Amino acid sequence: MAPYKELKAEILSIGDELLYGQIIDTNSHWISQELDKIGIRVVRRTTVGDNRDSILEAFRSAEERVDVILMTGGLGPTNDDLTKPLLAEYFNCEIKLVPEALDAVRSFFEKRGRELTPINKLQAHLPTKCTYIPNELGTAPGMWFHEKGKVWMSMPGVPHEMKKLMIDHVIPKIKEIYTLPHIYHKVIKTVGIGESWLSELIKDWELNLPKHIKLAYLPSLGQVKLRLTAFGAEMSKLKDDVEKEIENVKPLIEKYIFGYNQEKLEEAIGRLLKLQGKNVAFAESCSGGYISHLVTSIPGSSEYFQGGIIPYHNVFKNEILGVEANILKEKGAVSQETVIQMSENVRKMFNADFGLASSGIAGPGGGWAEKPVGTVWIACAMKERTISKKLQLTQDRMLNIQLTGVAVLNLLRQSIEGKTE
Amino acid sequence: MAPYKELKAEILSIGDELLYGQIIDTNSHWISQELDKIGIRVVRRTTVGDNRDSILEAFRSAEERVDVILMTGGLGPTNDDLTKPLLAEYFNCEIKLVPEALDAVRSFFEKRGRELTPINKLQAHLPTKCTYIPNELGTAPGMWFHEKGKVWMSMPGVPHEMKKLMIDHVIPKIKEIYTLPHIYHKVIKTVGIGESWLSELIKDWELNLPKHIKLAYLPSLGQVKLRLTAFGAEMSKLKDDVEKEIENVKPLIEKYIFGYNQEKLEEAIGRLLKLQGKNVAFAESCSGGYISHLVTSIPGSSEYFQGGIIPYHNVFKNEILGVEANILKEKGAVSQETVIQMSENVRKMFNADFGLASSGIAGPGGGWAEKPVGTVWIACAMKERTISKKLQLTQDRMLNIQLTGVAVLNLLRQSIEGKTE
Repeated sequence: MAPYKELKAEILSIGDELLYGQIIDTNSHWISQELDKIGIRVVRRTTVGDNRDSILEAFRSAEERVDVILMTGGLGPTNDDLTKPLLAEYFNCEIKLVPEALDAVRSFFEKRGRELTPINKLQAHLPTKCTYIPNELGTAPGMWFHEKGKVWMSMPGVPHEMKKLMIDHVIPKIKEIYTLPHIYHKVIKTVGIGESWLSELIKDWELNLPKHIKLAYLPSLGQVKLRLTAFGAEMSKLKDDVEKEIENVKPLIEKYIFGYNQEKLEEAIGRLLKLQGKNVAFAESCSGGYISHLVTSIPGSSEYFQGGIIPYHNVFKNEILGVEANILKEKGAVSQETVIQMSENVRKMFNADFGLASSGIAGPGGGWAEKPVGTVWIACAMKERTISKKLQLTQDRMLNIQLTGVAVLNLLRQSIEGKTE
Repeated sequence: MAPYKELKAEILSIGDELLYGQIIDTNSHWISQELDKIGIRVVRRTTVGDNRDSILEAFRSAEERVDVILMTGGLGPTNDDLTKPLLAEYFNCEIKLVPEALDAVRSFFEKRGRELTPINKLQAHLPTKCTYIPNELGTAPGMWFHEKGKVWMSMPGVPHEMKKLMIDHVIPKIKEIYTLPHIYHKVIKTVGIGESWLSELIKDWELNLPKHIKLAYLPSLGQVKLRLTAFGAEMSKLKDDVEKEIENVKPLIEKYIFGYNQEKLEEAIGRLLKLQGKNVAFAESCSGGYISHLVTSIPGSSEYFQGGIIPYHNVFKNEILGVEANILKEKGAVSQETVIQMSENVRKMFNADFGLASSGIAGPGGGWAEKPVGTVWIACAMKERTISKKLQLTQDRMLNIQLTGVAVLNLLRQSIEGKTE
C-alpha cells in the first residue's frame, strides 16, 4: 500500500432537540457513510446541547482526538444557537460582516420575494478566521476553519442543506488537503429476495473473495444492497478486481439485480422505460399515490410517466376507472379480479404501455379473518397480457404502503425486462 | 422550587457499525425520549467504536460529567465485543459465572429448540460488581452498576431487547434511587411563516417568558415548531405555566398554528375535515401524487380522502380532467386559469367538498425566463368559490415537490377553517 496517513474524524451534532429526542439525528449517519466512502475513519460521534460549556469542551476533546471535525446544528439566527459565537471564541477571533455572504442571504430572500430582516442579516456575520462556504439552499452559511493542522467545518443542521455543502464543498476541500487512501466501492442493488436467501445463493462466492475485498449486506425495505469494498494502492487494479468479482456473482443472482451504486429502483424503472421508448400509468388504491410520487420524484420522469389515479373508494373505482360494479360487489375491492381490471383500465385511460394497480388493506383498521390487514393485490397490464400477484404484508400501515411500492415497481421492472416469474 | 438534584445522563453507544454508518442508531433517540419524560436531562450522547482505549476514555469522561450512564452495544459473544471485559477492568473486579444468568440463557435456547454452545455459556459470566438484569428477549444480560454514587447500565444494542430492559428494569430502578424533578414540554406547530419572521412577531413575549420556561425554534421544511420546556417541582404548576404562556402567544401567531406536540400537518387536516364531516380530492401535476400520499399515510384517512388524479400531461388534463384545451394552449399548464379548472373539476369528479390542485415546474428541466423552475400554481375549489396562489420555490426538484405539498395542505387548512388570506 502507498504511504498515507490514516485520517480520523469526529462528528459533532449540536442541539437540545437531539438530546431531548425530539428529532432523530440522521445527519451523523449520513456523514459517517460519506466519510467511510473516501477512507476517513470516524472514531467518535458526539451530541451536545445548546450549552456553552458542553460545546467548548466538545471542541477541546475532539481536537485532541482527530484530524477532521465536522459539526452540524446550532447555526440559526435566534438566540439559542451558539455554534458561531463559540467557534469565534475558541479560535480567538472576531465576528465580522462578510459582504459575499450578505449578498447570498439577500439574494436568497429576493428570489422568494421577501424582505431581509435584521436578524437574517446577522447570518452574514462570520468569524474572521473561517472561510465562508455558501449555502445555496438556506440562510446559514457553512464555516470552514483550517487551524493548527486540523479541519473544522460547521454546517447547518437541516439535512438537505448539510448534504449539499458536504458534496459540493467539504469533501472536495478535504481531498485537496489530504492524501487519502484508495478505496473502491461498488454496490449491487437487489430487490425481491431477503438477506438470508441471498447469502445462501452466494455463499461459495463470498468465501472465495480475495482478502482485500470486503462484502457487506445492507438490507432495507424489500431490498438488499451488497457493498463490495476494495482497499489498496492502485485504483485501477482495485476497480478491476471488484468488477471481476461482480461478473462472478452476477449469474447467481441476476434476476434480483436492478442496478448499481446509487441507482434507486424508480430510477432503474425510468432507465428501462426510456431505453424501450415505453411509458406507464398507475391506479393506486392502498398505496394512495406513493408509487406515483416515487416515479415522479425522478428528474425527467415526464418522458415515461403518463399519469395516475387514486380511486380510494369503490364508487370511484367503478365510475371513474370503470371496474365493473358486480366484480366490486362479489369479489370485493381487494381481489385479483378488481386489481386486474384496475390495471387494464388505467392502461387504456392514460394510453400507456404498462398499467399498474394496487388494492389492499393498509391498516390498522379494515381487516377481517379472510382478508387480514396487510393483504394486498397488485397487477401489471400490458398489451398482450396482465400479471397479478397477492402480497401478505405487515400490521403497520406505513410499512405496507412502502412494501407495496417496492413490489409494484419490481413487478413493473420484471414486466419491462420480460422476465416475470 | 422544591429541592431536588437535577440528574444528568449520558448515552453511550458502542459499535464500529454505527461509526461506519452501516446501521442507524435509533437507540439513542429512543432513550433520550424516555429519559426526557421522567425529567432526567441527557447532556451528551457519545458513539465510540469497538476499541479499548476509546471505550475506557468514554467511561472516564462520562463519569466526570453525569450521574447516570446508559450504554448500548458491544455485548455479543464474539471477540470484537468489549463492553463487558472493559466494565470489569474499569470497576476493578473479576468476571464470574452467575448461575441465574446461565439458567436464563439455557432456557432461552431450549425454548427455541437449540443447544447451548460454549460461546453462549460465556454470556452468563458477569463482572462481580454488577447486578444481573435478565434479558428475556435475547442472550446478552443487562448489567447494572451502582458505583461511586453513579448509575451505570449496560444493555444490548438490539432495539427491542434494550427497550424491554429499560421499561421493565432500568427506569423503575432509577426512580427507586433518585427523587426526580418534573419537566413539562409542549410544542406549538406552525406553517406558512419562516423562523425569523415568527421570532419577530413573538419577540416581546419571548423576552418576558419566566426563567423556568425555555423556548426553542425547530424549523423544518416550510414549518417551524416552537418548543416550550418548563422545569420545576410541581407538575400541575408547570403545566399551568406553560399553557398560560401559550394562551399569551396564541393571538400573535394564531393563523400559523395548525397543531400541538406530535401532530403532523396531514393529521391536522384529517382532524379538521372529520370535525366538519367534509372530504377532499386532489389533482396533482407537479406534486405527482406526493400530497395524496401524505394524506393517505394517516390511519383512517379513507373517511375524508375521496381520491386523486395525476394528469401529468396536457392531453390528460384535458381529456380526463376536463381542463379546456384553449386554456391549456393559450395560458399553459402552469397558469392560474389551468390550476383553477383542475381544482374545480377534480372536486366535481370525486364529489368532494374541497378540490385541491397543483401545477408547476418541479425541475431541473422545463423552466424558461417567464416561468422559471420552481414556479408553481396551487388552488383550492369549494362550493362557493376557488382560491388560487402562485409560489416561487427552489431549483431542487424534491424540495419543490415537498414545499408544494406543505403549501397545498396549508391552503386546504386555511380553507377548512375559513381563514384564507
